[in-house]
Amino acid sequence: MSPSSWRSDRGPFAYLVARGDVAEASSERAWLQAMLDVEAALAASQAEVGEIPAETATAIADACDAERLDVELLHRSIELGGIAVIGLVEQLRALVGGDAAGHVHRGATSQDVMDTAAMTVVARCAALTAAALDDAASMVAALSAQHGDTAMIGRTLGQWALPTTFSAVTGRWRRALAGAATALRQTASRLPVQVGGPVGDGASYGPRADEVTKGVAERLGLAVPDGPWSTERAPVAAIAGAWGRAATAVGDVSTQLLALMSSDVGELAERAEGAGGSSSMAHKHNPVAAIAARAAALQAPGLIATLLHSAASHDFERASGPWHAEWPALNRLLRACGSAADWLVTSLGRVVVDPERMAANLARANAERGGG
Amino acid sequence: MSPSSWRSDRGPFAYLVARGDVAEASSERAWLQAMLDVEAALAASQAEVGEIPAETATAIADACDAERLDVELLHRSIELGGIAVIGLVEQLRALVGGDAAGHVHRGATSQDVMDTAAMTVVARCAALTAAALDDAASMVAALSAQHGDTAMIGRTLGQWALPTTFSAVTGRWRRALAGAATALRQTASRLPVQVGGPVGDGASYGPRADEVTKGVAERLGLAVPDGPWSTERAPVAAIAGAWGRAATAVGDVSTQLLALMSSDVGELAERAEGAGGSSSMAHKHNPVAAIAARAAALQAPGLIATLLHSAASHDFERASGPWHAEWPALNRLLRACGSAADWLVTSLGRVVVDPERMAANLARANAERGGG
Amino acid sequence: MSPSSWRSDRGPFAYLVARGDVAEASSERAWLQAMLDVEAALAASQAEVGEIPAETATAIADACDAERLDVELLHRSIELGGIAVIGLVEQLRALVGGDAAGHVHRGATSQDVMDTAAMTVVARCAALTAAALDDAASMVAALSAQHGDTAMIGRTLGQWALPTTFSAVTGRWRRALAGAATALRQTASRLPVQVGGPVGDGASYGPRADEVTKGVAERLGLAVPDGPWSTERAPVAAIAGAWGRAATAVGDVSTQLLALMSSDVGELAERAEGAGGSSSMAHKHNPVAAIAARAAALQAPGLIATLLHSAASHDFERASGPWHAEWPALNRLLRACGSAADWLVTSLGRVVVDPERMAANLARANAERGGG
Amino acid sequence: MSPSSWRSDRGPFAYLVARGDVAEASSERAWLQAMLDVEAALAASQAEVGEIPAETATAIADACDAERLDVELLHRSIELGGIAVIGLVEQLRALVGGDAAGHVHRGATSQDVMDTAAMTVVARCAALTAAALDDAASMVAALSAQHGDTAMIGRTLGQWALPTTFSAVTGRWRRALAGAATALRQTASRLPVQVGGPVGDGASYGPRADEVTKGVAERLGLAVPDGPWSTERAPVAAIAGAWGRAATAVGDVSTQLLALMSSDVGELAERAEGAGGSSSMAHKHNPVAAIAARAAALQAPGLIATLLHSAASHDFERASGPWHAEWPALNRLLRACGSAADWLVTSLGRVVVDPERMAANLARANAERGGG
Repeated sequence: MSPSSWRSDRGPFAYLVARGDVAEASSERAWLQAMLDVEAALAASQAEVGEIPAETATAIADACDAERLDVELLHRSIELGGIAVIGLVEQLRALVGGDAAGHVHRGATSQDVMDTAAMTVVARCAALTAAALDDAASMVAALSAQHGDTAMIGRTLGQWALPTTFSAVTGRWRRALAGAATALRQTASRLPVQVGGPVGDGASYGPRADEVTKGVAERLGLAVPDGPWSTERAPVAAIAGAWGRAATAVGDVSTQLLALMSSDVGELAERAEGAGGSSSMAHKHNPVAAIAARAAALQAPGLIATLLHSAASHDFERASGPWHAEWPALNRLLRACGSAADWLVTSLGRVVVDPERMAANLARANAERGGG
Repeated sequence: MSPSSWRSDRGPFAYLVARGDVAEASSERAWLQAMLDVEAALAASQAEVGEIPAETATAIADACDAERLDVELLHRSIELGGIAVIGLVEQLRALVGGDAAGHVHRGATSQDVMDTAAMTVVARCAALTAAALDDAASMVAALSAQHGDTAMIGRTLGQWALPTTFSAVTGRWRRALAGAATALRQTASRLPVQVGGPVGDGASYGPRADEVTKGVAERLGLAVPDGPWSTERAPVAAIAGAWGRAATAVGDVSTQLLALMSSDVGELAERAEGAGGSSSMAHKHNPVAAIAARAAALQAPGLIATLLHSAASHDFERASGPWHAEWPALNRLLRACGSAADWLVTSLGRVVVDPERMAANLARANAERGGG
Repeated sequence: MSPSSWRSDRGPFAYLVARGDVAEASSERAWLQAMLDVEAALAASQAEVGEIPAETATAIADACDAERLDVELLHRSIELGGIAVIGLVEQLRALVGGDAAGHVHRGATSQDVMDTAAMTVVARCAALTAAALDDAASMVAALSAQHGDTAMIGRTLGQWALPTTFSAVTGRWRRALAGAATALRQTASRLPVQVGGPVGDGASYGPRADEVTKGVAERLGLAVPDGPWSTERAPVAAIAGAWGRAATAVGDVSTQLLALMSSDVGELAERAEGAGGSSSMAHKHNPVAAIAARAAALQAPGLIATLLHSAASHDFERASGPWHAEWPALNRLLRACGSAADWLVTSLGRVVVDPERMAANLARANAERGGG
Repeated sequence: MSPSSWRSDRGPFAYLVARGDVAEASSERAWLQAMLDVEAALAASQAEVGEIPAETATAIADACDAERLDVELLHRSIELGGIAVIGLVEQLRALVGGDAAGHVHRGATSQDVMDTAAMTVVARCAALTAAALDDAASMVAALSAQHGDTAMIGRTLGQWALPTTFSAVTGRWRRALAGAATALRQTASRLPVQVGGPVGDGASYGPRADEVTKGVAERLGLAVPDGPWSTERAPVAAIAGAWGRAATAVGDVSTQLLALMSSDVGELAERAEGAGGSSSMAHKHNPVAAIAARAAALQAPGLIATLLHSAASHDFERASGPWHAEWPALNRLLRACGSAADWLVTSLGRVVVDPERMAANLARANAERGGG
C-alpha cells in the first residue's frame, strides 16, 4: 500500500475514541472553518453597526472557506506561533486583499477567535452526541416495549436481591440517556462568544462593542455573555459538567449491559453477523460494542480533570500554558463522549433478550432466598 | 496534652481543605442527621397517605436526633456493614420502640437513605459555599469601586500587552464568582430524592409510591426525580459539574491574585497583622490566604475525576464498589470548594492595591512597547 | 453524647479511606512529630560537624516531642502562616530556651522541614502498607494451597472462555500483591531529604552542607539526593508511581474477588459473623470488605492526578499554591492505599471457596461450548 | 486543496500533544508492526524449542511486515472485533499460506499480542523521550556554563526572598531532566512480555511455555515476567509512574522558564526568527515553545488517572472495558510526554539570558529587603 494511506492515521485507537460524526465535527478542518466563521461573523456585525463597509464584510465572508487555506503554510505558522489564528488571519488577509484586508480581524485577538470557535465546535458536537443519546434512548424504549414485563432477579452489590422487571431497568437507562441529551442541548444553548480584544476588556472593539458582540453571537447561534471571560473559564467548566453527565449515562448503561451479557448471567447478548469473534476461541460471542462504549466513556473523567485543572489556572489576561492545555483535552472529551454514544447505539442495535434465562435465574435466586 | 485532644484530628491539612462552615455541614454528625431526616420525612409522608399511623410518624420524627445515637455502636456496625444506614436503622427502631418500630424505614433500602441524605448534605453545602462566593464577589466589587479606574498594563502569555484598567480585571472576577454561586444554587434546587427500594424500582413503596416520593422531596427541600436513579448517576454528575465551576472561579481568581501579588509585579498584596511570615526570612509578606485558596481549589479536578469515574461504573441495581467510592470523593469535593471560597474571602479581606506600582509598571511597559 | 465526641470526627468516611495503622501514621500528630524529628536530626548533624554545640543538639532533641506542643497555639499560627513549620519552630525555640534556642532550625527553611517530614511520613506508611500487602499475598497463597488444583472456567470479556485453575488466578493475585509491596519498599528506600535552605540552593547551610545533608538522611533513614529538589518534584512523582501500583494491585484483586463472589458466579464468598447484612433483605451476604477495598483503591487515580498536576507546576524557588496542594493529596493517597490493603486483608480473611460451584459452572460452560 | 490532504489530519492539536518522533513511534502503523513483531518472535521462539518447523518461523517472519497489510480490510475487522489482533492474524495467516499458516499465533490470544506489542511501543517511545530529556539537560548545562555564576534574586511563594545564582536554578533543572530520562530507561528495561494464552495461565503454550516466553522476551528486548499479568496490571502502573515523573520534570522546568520569561521578571526570553508573534500586538515576543511544553506536560496527570483507573479495574481473566480503555490513554500519555520534551528542547534552544535584568531585579529586591 502507498505511504499516503498511512498518513491518514487518526491514531491507532480512533475507532474507540474518535469515531462517528463527532470525529469529523472536531477535525482540524472543522476547527479552522469555525475560526473562519468567527471572522466572517465579526466582519458582518461590524458592517451592521457601520464600522466597516458592507461590501468588505461580504468579501471577508467569501474568503472564509477552509478549502482555500494553504494548510502546509498554516502548519508552519502554527509551529512558530503555537496557535492557528495568527497564520489563519494572515492568509485570510491575503485572500481578501486590497483595502478590505485591513478590516479583517478588526479589534480582535487570537483568544477571541479561538474561544468563540471552540464554542462553535462544541455546539456542533453537542447536537450530534445528543442525537445519538436520543437514538439510544429510543432503542432502549423499543427493547422495553418488547420485553418490559419480563420478571428478572434484581442484583445489589452483585448479590441476588429481590425480583424486579426488565422495564424497571430499561426505564432507568432511558431516563439517563434522554436526560443527558437534554443537558448537552441546554449547555450548548448557553455557550457564549468571546469578544474581549487583546487584553480581555473589550476596549479594542470601540463604543459599539456590545452591539458587535450581540451580532457575532446571533450569527453563530451562540449566547451573549455578561462580559469577556478570557481568564475566568466558567463556560469551559460548564462543558465539563454536561459532557461528564453524558459519559456517566453511557458508562452506567454499558456497564450494566455488560453485567447482564456476562455468560454467568446471560440475560442479554450482543448478536451480529461477524462481530464479537475471538482470535483463539471460535465459540465466543464477545459484546464488543458495549465494551467499546464503556472504554470510550471511561476516557472522560481524566480528560475532565485535565480540562478543569487547566481552566482553573489562568493567569493575568491570557494564560501562559493552561489555555493551550485546554484545547486537546476539550477536543478529546467531545470525541470520547461522541464515540461512546455511537458505540452504545451499535450495541443496543445488537442486543437480544433471553427471557428464558431471566426466568431461570429468577428461579435459582428465589430458591436460594427461600432456603437461606 | 491529653490523648483526647489528638483524637480531634480532622487530618493534618484540614485547615486547607476542610475549613469553615462547610466542614461542619459535611461532618459525620451532619451526614447521620441527614440520614435521620430522610427517615423522618419518609415516615411523615407515609403517614400523610395513610400507610402508617400519624402518631407513629411523630414518634419516629422525635427519635431522629443524631445526639441520641450510640456512636461507638454505630461505628462497630459500619465495620460490619460497610455503610452507616444498617446500624442507624437498628438504633432508630430501638429508640422508637413498640409497634411503631416496625414502621421505621418502611419500604426503604440503604441506598434510598444514603443517596437522599447525600443530596441534603450537598444542598446545605451549596448554600454555604454560594454565600461565600457571593461575599467574595461583593468584596471584589468594593475593591473595584475604590480603584477601578486605575490604569494598569494588561499581560497576555505573561508578556506586557496593552493598557487596561483594574475594573476590567475585577469585573471578570466578580462575574465569575457570582456566576459560580448561581450555578451552585441552581444545581442545589434540582437535587432529587432517591425513592427506589431494595432493587431500585420503587415497588416496595406500594401503590402510593409517587405521593410518598413527593412528600419526602417537599419535606427535605429536594426535587422529585422522574424515577429512581440508583445506578444511573446523573445527579452526581450534575454536582461534579457545578462544583467544578466553583473551583474554576476560585482557582482563576486566586491564580490572578497571586500573579499580581508577586514581588516583581507588586500591584496587589495581602496585608494582615501577623499573617504571611516566614520561618527563615523576616522581611517577607507571603500571600498565604490566596495560596491556600488556590491549593484548595486545585483539589477539585482530581476529586471530580474520581467521582465521575465511580458514577459512570455502576453495575446491576446497586454498584459493588463504585457507589461506596463516590462518598469520600463527594464529601471532599464539597469541603475543598467550601474551603477554597472561604480562603478567598480571607484573601480579599487582606488585599491592598498599589496604584503607584500599577502606574510604574505601565510606564515601563509603555516605554518598552514604544521602543520595541 | 457530649459535643467533644463529635469533634473526634475524622470525616464520615474515614472507615473507608483513612483506616488502620496508616491513618495514625499520617495523622496531624504524626506529621508534627516528623517535623520535629527533622529539626532534631538537623541539630545533631550540625553538632557532628562542629557547627553547634553537642549539648545544644541534645537539648533540641529533648524538646522535639509532639506531646509538648501547644496545639491550639499551633493551629492559630497555621491560620496565619498557612503551614505548620513557622509556629512549630517558634514553640520549639521557646521549649529549648536560652542561647540554644538560636541554633534551632539553623540554615533551614520551612520547605526543608515540610518536604523531609513528608518523606518520613511516606516511609512509615510504605512499611505499613507493604506489610498489609504481604499479608494479603500470604493469605492468597494459603487459599491456593487449599484449593489451587480446583478447575474452574476462565472468563474473558465476561464470557466463558476455556477451563483454568484456581491456582492460576491466585498466582496472578499473589504476584501482584507481593510485587506492589516490593515496589513500595524500594521507593521508600530512595526517598530523599530536602536540605536546600531559603532559596533551595543549600547556601544557608554553609561549607559543610553536604555533610549535614548526609547526617540528616542517615538519622531519618532517608536517602541523600544529588541536590535540592525544592521545585523539581521527582520524589513526589516517584511516590505517585509506587502508590499507583499498590492501588492497581488491590483494585484488580478486589474487582476479581467481587466478580467471583457475585451470586451468578458464586465461586467465592465472604462469610463472617454479623458482617454483610442488608437494611432491607435479611437473606443477603454482601461482600462488604471486598467492596470497601475496591472503593478505597479507586480513590487513588484521582488523587494521583492532583498530586502530579501540582508537582508539575512549581514556580520559582518555592511554589505559590501547587506545593501546598500536594500535601492533602499526598496524605489522602497514603491513607487510601493503606485502607485498601487493610480492607483486602479483611476480605481475604473471610473468603470461602465453593469448589462445587466451580465444578457446576465449568460443566455449564463446557456444555455451552460443546454445543456452540 | 484535495480532500485527501484533510484525511491526513492527526487531530487539530497534534502539534501540541502528538509531535516529534514519538508521534511516529506510536502511530497506527507502529502499533501494527509491533503486533507483527510479536507474532514473528513467538514463531521463532517456538521453532527454537522445536514446536514448529524453523522454515515456518522464517516464513512467518517474512510475512510480518505492516506494509503488506490491507489496512481497509483491517479497519473493517476492527469494527467487528473491537481489537486489531483478530483481523491481523487472519491476514497474516493468508500471507503465510499453506500448512505454515496453521502455526501462526500458536497458543496465543489477542491479549498476549496486544499487551506485548504495547510494551514494545512503550520501550521505543521511552528511548526517544529519554533522548529528548537528555538533550534538554545538556542544553541547560550549556546555559549554566555560560551564565551560571550570575547572581539573581530567589523567589519563594512569588516573593523576593534571598539572592541565589542562575547555576542553582539550572542545577535543579538539569538533575530533574536527567533523572527523568534515567527513570524512563529503567522502566523500559523491565517491561515484561505477556505470554498467558486464552485464559491467562500459560497452559496453551504447552510444557515449554517458559522457554518460549524467554525467547519472545529476548527477541523483543523485553523482560521475562514472573508469570502472566493479564488482569493484574503492574506493568501499566509502572509506566504511569515513570511517565508521570517525566511530565513532572518538563512541567516544572517549563513553568519556571515561563515565570522567568514574564515581562515583569524578564531575566530570560525566547528569541527565534518569526516565532512568538501575536495576531493583534506586533511588539510581543511570546515564549511559545515553553508554553507548548507546559501545555503538553499538563495533559499527563489526567491521562494517568484514566490509565490507573482502568488498570485497577480488571475483571476475571480479561477485562470487559477497562483493558480497552487503557490503550488510548497509554498512547496519548506516551505522545504527550514526548511532545512536552520535544517542545522543551525547542524552548531551550531559543533561550537568551539577560544578566543585566538579573542584576537590576536583584538590586530592587535588596533595596526592598533592606528597607523592610
